[in-house]
Amino acid sequence: MLDKATMKLNVDPLIISALREDITSEDVSTNAVMPHAQAGTADLICKEDGVICGLQVFERVFKLLDEDVKITFSAKDGDRVTKGQKLAVLEGDIRILLEGERTALNYLQRMSGVATYTAKVASYLEGTNIKLLDTRKTTPNMRVFEKYAVTVGGGYNHRLNLSDGVLLKDNHIGAAGGVKEAIAAAKEYASFVRKIEVEVETLDMVKEAVEACADIIMLDNMDNETMEKAVAIIDKKALIEVSGNVTAENIKRLSNLGVDYVSSGALTHSAPILDLSLKNLRPV
Amino acid sequence: MLDKATMKLNVDPLIISALREDITSEDVSTNAVMPHAQAGTADLICKEDGVICGLQVFERVFKLLDEDVKITFSAKDGDRVTKGQKLAVLEGDIRILLEGERTALNYLQRMSGVATYTAKVASYLEGTNIKLLDTRKTTPNMRVFEKYAVTVGGGYNHRLNLSDGVLLKDNHIGAAGGVKEAIAAAKEYASFVRKIEVEVETLDMVKEAVEACADIIMLDNMDNETMEKAVAIIDKKALIEVSGNVTAENIKRLSNLGVDYVSSGALTHSAPILDLSLKNLRPV
Amino acid sequence: MLDKATMKLNVDPLIISALREDITSEDVSTNAVMPHAQAGTADLICKEDGVICGLQVFERVFKLLDEDVKITFSAKDGDRVTKGQKLAVLEGDIRILLEGERTALNYLQRMSGVATYTAKVASYLEGTNIKLLDTRKTTPNMRVFEKYAVTVGGGYNHRLNLSDGVLLKDNHIGAAGGVKEAIAAAKEYASFVRKIEVEVETLDMVKEAVEACADIIMLDNMDNETMEKAVAIIDKKALIEVSGNVTAENIKRLSNLGVDYVSSGALTHSAPILDLSLKNLRPV
Amino acid sequence: MLDKATMKLNVDPLIISALREDITSEDVSTNAVMPHAQAGTADLICKEDGVICGLQVFERVFKLLDEDVKITFSAKDGDRVTKGQKLAVLEGDIRILLEGERTALNYLQRMSGVATYTAKVASYLEGTNIKLLDTRKTTPNMRVFEKYAVTVGGGYNHRLNLSDGVLLKDNHIGAAGGVKEAIAAAKEYASFVRKIEVEVETLDMVKEAVEACADIIMLDNMDNETMEKAVAIIDKKALIEVSGNVTAENIKRLSNLGVDYVSSGALTHSAPILDLSLKNLRPV
Amino acid sequence: MLDKATMKLNVDPLIISALREDITSEDVSTNAVMPHAQAGTADLICKEDGVICGLQVFERVFKLLDEDVKITFSAKDGDRVTKGQKLAVLEGDIRILLEGERTALNYLQRMSGVATYTAKVASYLEGTNIKLLDTRKTTPNMRVFEKYAVTVGGGYNHRLNLSDGVLLKDNHIGAAGGVKEAIAAAKEYASFVRKIEVEVETLDMVKEAVEACADIIMLDNMDNETMEKAVAIIDKKALIEVSGNVTAENIKRLSNLGVDYVSSGALTHSAPILDLSLKNLRPV
Amino acid sequence: MLDKATMKLNVDPLIISALREDITSEDVSTNAVMPHAQAGTADLICKEDGVICGLQVFERVFKLLDEDVKITFSAKDGDRVTKGQKLAVLEGDIRILLEGERTALNYLQRMSGVATYTAKVASYLEGTNIKLLDTRKTTPNMRVFEKYAVTVGGGYNHRLNLSDGVLLKDNHIGAAGGVKEAIAAAKEYASFVRKIEVEVETLDMVKEAVEACADIIMLDNMDNETMEKAVAIIDKKALIEVSGNVTAENIKRLSNLGVDYVSSGALTHSAPILDLSLKNLRPV
Repeated sequence: MLDKATMKLNVDPLIISALREDITSEDVSTNAVMPHAQAGTADLICKEDGVICGLQVFERVFKLLDEDVKITFSAKDGDRVTKGQKLAVLEGDIRILLEGERTALNYLQRMSGVATYTAKVASYLEGTNIKLLDTRKTTPNMRVFEKYAVTVGGGYNHRLNLSDGVLLKDNHIGAAGGVKEAIAAAKEYASFVRKIEVEVETLDMVKEAVEACADIIMLDNMDNETMEKAVAIIDKKALIEVSGNVTAENIKRLSNLGVDYVSSGALTHSAPILDLSLKNLRPV
Repeated sequence: MLDKATMKLNVDPLIISALREDITSEDVSTNAVMPHAQAGTADLICKEDGVICGLQVFERVFKLLDEDVKITFSAKDGDRVTKGQKLAVLEGDIRILLEGERTALNYLQRMSGVATYTAKVASYLEGTNIKLLDTRKTTPNMRVFEKYAVTVGGGYNHRLNLSDGVLLKDNHIGAAGGVKEAIAAAKEYASFVRKIEVEVETLDMVKEAVEACADIIMLDNMDNETMEKAVAIIDKKALIEVSGNVTAENIKRLSNLGVDYVSSGALTHSAPILDLSLKNLRPV
Repeated sequence: MLDKATMKLNVDPLIISALREDITSEDVSTNAVMPHAQAGTADLICKEDGVICGLQVFERVFKLLDEDVKITFSAKDGDRVTKGQKLAVLEGDIRILLEGERTALNYLQRMSGVATYTAKVASYLEGTNIKLLDTRKTTPNMRVFEKYAVTVGGGYNHRLNLSDGVLLKDNHIGAAGGVKEAIAAAKEYASFVRKIEVEVETLDMVKEAVEACADIIMLDNMDNETMEKAVAIIDKKALIEVSGNVTAENIKRLSNLGVDYVSSGALTHSAPILDLSLKNLRPV
Repeated sequence: MLDKATMKLNVDPLIISALREDITSEDVSTNAVMPHAQAGTADLICKEDGVICGLQVFERVFKLLDEDVKITFSAKDGDRVTKGQKLAVLEGDIRILLEGERTALNYLQRMSGVATYTAKVASYLEGTNIKLLDTRKTTPNMRVFEKYAVTVGGGYNHRLNLSDGVLLKDNHIGAAGGVKEAIAAAKEYASFVRKIEVEVETLDMVKEAVEACADIIMLDNMDNETMEKAVAIIDKKALIEVSGNVTAENIKRLSNLGVDYVSSGALTHSAPILDLSLKNLRPV
Repeated sequence: MLDKATMKLNVDPLIISALREDITSEDVSTNAVMPHAQAGTADLICKEDGVICGLQVFERVFKLLDEDVKITFSAKDGDRVTKGQKLAVLEGDIRILLEGERTALNYLQRMSGVATYTAKVASYLEGTNIKLLDTRKTTPNMRVFEKYAVTVGGGYNHRLNLSDGVLLKDNHIGAAGGVKEAIAAAKEYASFVRKIEVEVETLDMVKEAVEACADIIMLDNMDNETMEKAVAIIDKKALIEVSGNVTAENIKRLSNLGVDYVSSGALTHSAPILDLSLKNLRPV
Repeated sequence: MLDKATMKLNVDPLIISALREDITSEDVSTNAVMPHAQAGTADLICKEDGVICGLQVFERVFKLLDEDVKITFSAKDGDRVTKGQKLAVLEGDIRILLEGERTALNYLQRMSGVATYTAKVASYLEGTNIKLLDTRKTTPNMRVFEKYAVTVGGGYNHRLNLSDGVLLKDNHIGAAGGVKEAIAAAKEYASFVRKIEVEVETLDMVKEAVEACADIIMLDNMDNETMEKAVAIIDKKALIEVSGNVTAENIKRLSNLGVDYVSSGALTHSAPILDLSLKNLRPV
C-alpha cells in the first residue's frame, strides 16, 4: 500500500504537515547549541513486545528533512518485535535526528500500536474462516497509515472512504423506499466495479437484500437465533459481515454461524501505542 | 484556544484534509439514493460516561460542507456527560449529515477520549499543588486538537512544538559542553520571552542548572532519595518537572517531595476514544 | 455526483486553479475601463444542438469570484438543448461577469461536449442490454467533470481511478504467474468491497478467469468467433466487458453475442465541445 | 516555454494534481501482485500519424513518481511521427511504469492532438503572411500545455490570460464611453509594455481605433467588402486580427485582404487526441 | 487592480499566509483573558502625513478572520492624509481586532509608505512628459501590493513579472548574436500582444534597435551627450526609458532630452513605511 | 535559525511563492533567445558597505529552480562587506541564473538591509547592558527572514508571533479587570514555558505587575523621572523593556536607568535595502 507512488502523492504531504506542526519556525533548543551540522548516530529501540509497523514512514520523516540521513533497519513491517530489541540504526546530521525524532516516533508508535492490537484480535479468528475488517473510525488525517497498519497486523480493509464503496444503511434504504429500491438505485448509480453492501436489521430485509442481489449483507444488531436464520436465508448468495465486539466467545459463535467477516472500529480508534524510542543518540 | 482565528487559520485546513480523506470524489451511497437535498435532523448521543470535548470542531465539519447546517448543543466542552445523554440536535440537508457524520465523530470521539482520560489522571492530583502536563507525543496532524483536549480535561500544556519552548536534553548539553554552557547558549540564542528548561540526571547537573539560572528543571529517572536532594538543591529557584507514570501512589510521593509538574505522554498517545454516535437521523 | 460536498472538497480547488490560470494578477482590460462595480446582466445562449452539462460548475465559477452573482437557469443538466436557446440569465457586477466568462464557458462547453457525444454513442445501444462505459482516458485535472458528463449523457462510469477498482492486465498476470494467481492475489489484497476484473486474450485465460471467480472479464482484441466461445465459457458467471470502437454494426454484433458492457476512451478524450456563449452582456 | 523553471514552478503542481486524481490512495491492482520493485522496460509507440508534442511532460510524470525512471527518446517535440513508430524506451520499476502510464499518456495524447491539428490548420496559411493564433478557449488547468502545443504545431500564442494582454470588447468600449475613450483608458491604466487591442464592428469604430492609436485591431464579424474598407482605413497603422473558421477558401480571401492574424478557438477546444500507447511493458 | 477577483484569487492566499505567520496556533495573550466574544471598536489613526494606500487589504485581513467585522472608512486609497487624522472606525469582536491588528497594519503601513514615497518622487516630474515607472525590485510575496501602491502614488507599472513583458538585456543580446537577432527572436517567440523592449549601451546598438523595430528602448548608463544623440536616432520611432536616480536636476535634464519614462527601484525597495496605528480599542 | 529543517519546512514554500510571483508562466525574454541550456557564470557583487545576510536564501532560490546551480561564497552571513567586494561566484545554466536573479537579489538585498541597519543601531548600545529587540512590525510573509536578519545584525528577537509569547496590553488588562488579574489569567492559561510580559503606563501598574510576578515589564511612554521610579520599584524582580526611538542620547539615558531591553520596529519596517547585484553574467 505504501509504495513509492503512494508515499510521494498521498503520504509526503501529511508528513510535511505533521513536521510543520512540530517546527513552526525552528528547533530553538538544537539551534542554540549546535550551529553547524554534526555527524551522529542513534538506535531505534523497542520498549514493548508487539508488531512493528510504519518503518518506511519513520524513515521518510527524516528523509524529507534531509536526504542524507541513512537508516539501516534490522526489522521489517509485520515482524514481531520484543522489548529491548534494536530495530534500526540512524546515521546523519545529529540536528536532523533531533528535529525529526518526535514526529517519526509519533507515526511509528501509533502504526505499530494498531498493528499490534489488530494482530491480537486477529489471533482470535485463527482456525476460522472469518476475516477481521477495519472501519472508517480512524483518526482524522491518519487513515492511510491506520488502514495499512491493520493489514500489517493481519486484518483486512473495508472500504477506504465514502467514494470507493457502497454501504446502504437505514437512511439510504428509507430514502430509496425499501431495500430492493436502494440496491437497484445503487447498482444503477455506482460504478459496476463496486460491490453493493446493505445493512439489514430484520429477516424480511435479509430476504429482500438477497432477492435484489446484494453482494454483501451486514447483519446489524441481531441476536444469535435471528442471525442463524439470516445466514440460512442468504445461503452463500452474498458475503456476510457482522460488526461488533471481537471476543473469544463471540468469534466462536460467529464462526459456527458461518459469517464471513467481522468488523471492528476499535482496531483503529482505541489501540494503545507501542512504546518505541530513539536511544544512544550521539555524535560520531 | 479554538477561537475564531485559530479555527480559520489552523483548524479548517486540517478538517478539510480529513474530509477529503473520506470523500475522494463523492459519497456514492448517498448520491445513489438521494439526488436532491432533503431536510433532516439527527441527535448526537453519548454512549459512555466521560468529558465531552470538541463540539465546535464537530460543528465545523458540517459547516465546512454546508453553512446551512444548524446544530443546537445541550452541552459544552468540559461537561461531564453520561451514557444515553443527548448532546446536540443537528438540522440540515440529510445528505450533508450523512457525509460529515464519520469525520465529525472521529474528531469528537478522540478529543473527548483525551479529555476524559486527562480528567481521570488529573483527579489523582487533586489536593496537591502538582499540575498535570501533556507532551509532544501527540498523533500527527492532531496536536492542536489533542493539546486543547488536555486543557479541557484539567491538564496543562507543555510547549506546543519545538519552536516555542526550550528544553535542553543530554544531547544539547553534550553539544554545548555542559549544563552551564547549554543554558548560557540558550539564553543568548532564544527569544527572551522563553523560559529555559533543562533535563538533568544527576545532582551535579541539578546544581549546575540552578547556578546557571535554569527556569525549569526536569528530573529524569531519579530515585526517590535523589529526587529529594534535588528538590532541596533547587530550593524554589526553578520550577520542577517530573515525567513518568501517573498513579495514585506515585503522585502522593511526588507531592510530598514538592515537585511542581508531572508530564504524561499517555494523555495524548494512549487515551481510548469516548463512544459517541449520531442517532435518529431522519427526514423532516 | 457533483453534490455540495463534492463541489466544496473536490471541485472548488480545481475551479480556483483554473481561474488563477486566467487571472494571474487582474483583468487588466476590465479594470482599465470599469474602476467600480456596475450591475449588469447577460444571457447564456446555446449555439449548437446538444446535451447541456455542467451548469452548476458554470455557476460556481462566478460564485467563487463573487457570491452576489445570481444565475437563473431555464435548463438543467441532461436536457437536450437547441441552437439559439437561452439557457440562463446572469445578474451581477458586470466586471465579475466578464472575468468569469471564459473559465465558466470553457468548463461548460467541454462538459456539454462530452455529454452530447456520449448521448450520441449511447443511442447506438438502445434496444440492447449493453451499457456504455467510459475509461481513465480523461483530460488531466478534468476527471470528475468528464466522468460526470458521461453519466449525464447516458453512459456509465468504469472505475474512477487506480485506487478504487481492480483491473488485472497482462503485466499483472505475468507478475503473479498466471490468471488464477493474479485473481487470488487481488482477492486477498484488495478490499472485499471491490470486484475483480481481469483482461483476457485467449480462451484458456477465459477459463482460468471463470474458475478463479473473476467478477468481470474483459475480452481483449478477440475476433467474433473467439468472443462467442468466450461468452459461452463464461456462461453468466461473470460480467463481460469489451472495449473498442462503438459503431452501429459493432454494437449489433456485440449485442447478439451477449456482452454486458462496452467501454470507449473516445467519450472523454475526443469529444468536440458544444458551442455556447454569453450574449447581451449589458449594464442594467 | 516548458523550460526547467516553468516545469518546476508552473507545471509540476498540475501534474501532481493529475496523478492524485488517478491514485487517490494506491494502485491496488499493481500492489496486489507486485509487492516489490522490479526492473522493467516499455516502448512508447505512435498509433497514428501526427505531430508529437509534450515529451518532457510525459517524462516528468514518471520522474515525479520516481526519479530513477529513465526515458530515452528517439523523437522530439514538433517531429512528424507515423503510425507504428517507436518514440521512446522507458526503463524503471515496472510498478512505476504502470502507475504513471495513463496520466503520462493523457497529457501526451492531448498535447500531440493539439499540435497535430494546429499543424494541419497552419498548413492552409502557407505561402501567406497570415499567422495563426490560439485563444483563451483552452481546457481548464491545461492552458500552459495547450498553448505550448499550438506553438509546436506552427501556430502563435495570443495573450496567455486576462492579466497579460489588453483586448477591449464592446462592453469595455461601452463602459468607457467609446472606442477612443476605452483605448485612452487602457493606455493610461495598463503597463506600457502591453499593446492595446480593440475589437471593432463598424468602419466608424475602425477609424476611431486608428486615430486613438490602437496597436491591434480585431475585425469582428465583417463581410468581405467591409473588411476590405477596414484594411484600407487601417493602412498598416495597426496589426489586424480576424477570428473565425479557418478553411482553405477563407484563408485565401483573408490573405488577399492583407490581414495579419487569424485566431481559432478550435485549435485548443476541439482537436481530437493523437493516439499513442505504451507497449511491450515487460520485466527485464 | 485590487478588485474582487484579484482579491479572491491572488491576494487572499497571501494574507492568509501572513496571518498564519503571526498566529501559528492562537493569540495566547488574548485568549487568556477573553474566553468569549466581546463587541468592541477601534480607530485607525494616521501618525504621519502621507498618501494612504491599502485600505481594502487592511479590511480584508479582519474579514478573513471574521466576516462580521465592520469597518467604516473616512478616507480612500490615494488620499493625502495628515498626522492625527482618523481614517476608519472598526467594529467587531474585540478579540478579532486584536488578532488582526498587526498584520493589517503591517500591510497598510508598507503600502502607504510606497505610495507616499512614489508621490514625492512623481512630484519632481510634474510639468514634464516623463512618466515614473517601478521595477521588479519588490519585496518577495509583496509584488501585487507594492505595484498597486506605486500607481496609487502616481507612478506607473513596468512589467509585472518575467512572463508578461519582454526586456532584452546584454545577455539576451549576446545569446541571440546581436540586437537585431534578439529582437527578431523575441518578435517570433513572444505573444504578439507584447511590446519588445531592449536595453542598449551604445549608439550603434540604438541604431540596430530602431532598425529592428524595438517598441521600447532603454538607455543604459549613457552620459548626457550620448543620450542626446540616442534620442535623435530614435526619433520617436520607439518609446525611451531611462533608469536611475530620480532627483530634481536629473529630471530636468531628462525632460529636456525628450525621454518618455524613468524607472526607479527605490520606489518599492527602499520606501520607509507610513506610521499608522489602531487607537482607542475598547469594548462597547 | 535557517537550518536545513527550517529551510525545508518554512522557507522553501515562501521562496517558491515568490518565484511564482515573478514567473507566472515563463521567462519569455530568455526563452526567446536561449532555447537550450548553456553553461554560464556570474559574480555576486556588493555595491554598498554593509552587513551581508541571507546568503543561503539567495542560494536556495537558484537551487529550487535547478539543483545543478553551484554557488561558491567568499563571505558568510554577518560579515561586514564593502562596495565592490565579490561575495560569490555562481555557475550553472545561464537561463536559470537569469530567471532566479531578481528574486534571489530581492531577498538578499532586503535581509542585508535589515542586518546592516540593525548593526548600526546596535552599535549605539555598545558598552551598555541593554539588548536591542525587534518587534512584530515585519513585512508580511517576510517574518522569518527579517527576524533572522536582526540577529545577524546583532539584535535579539522578541516573540516571533502571537502564539509563542505573552504580552498583556491595556486591552488585555482591561478585559481581565486589572494588571494582577491579567497576569494571573495568563499564568493559568499559557504554557508554563512562556514568560509573562505586561505593558504598564503608571507606577501603580508597575507595582501591581511586580506583585503579580510578571516576568517582563514594558514601560510604555514614561518620562525619565517616572521611568526611574519604575526601575526602582521593579528592583531586578522582572526584566525591563522599553520601546521607542533608538538614538545615541536616548540609549545613554536608558542605560543609566538600568533598563534591560529596548525594542525598535524600525529595524524591520524601515531599513533601506543594501545594494547588491549580479555582474559578469556570461556563458562559459
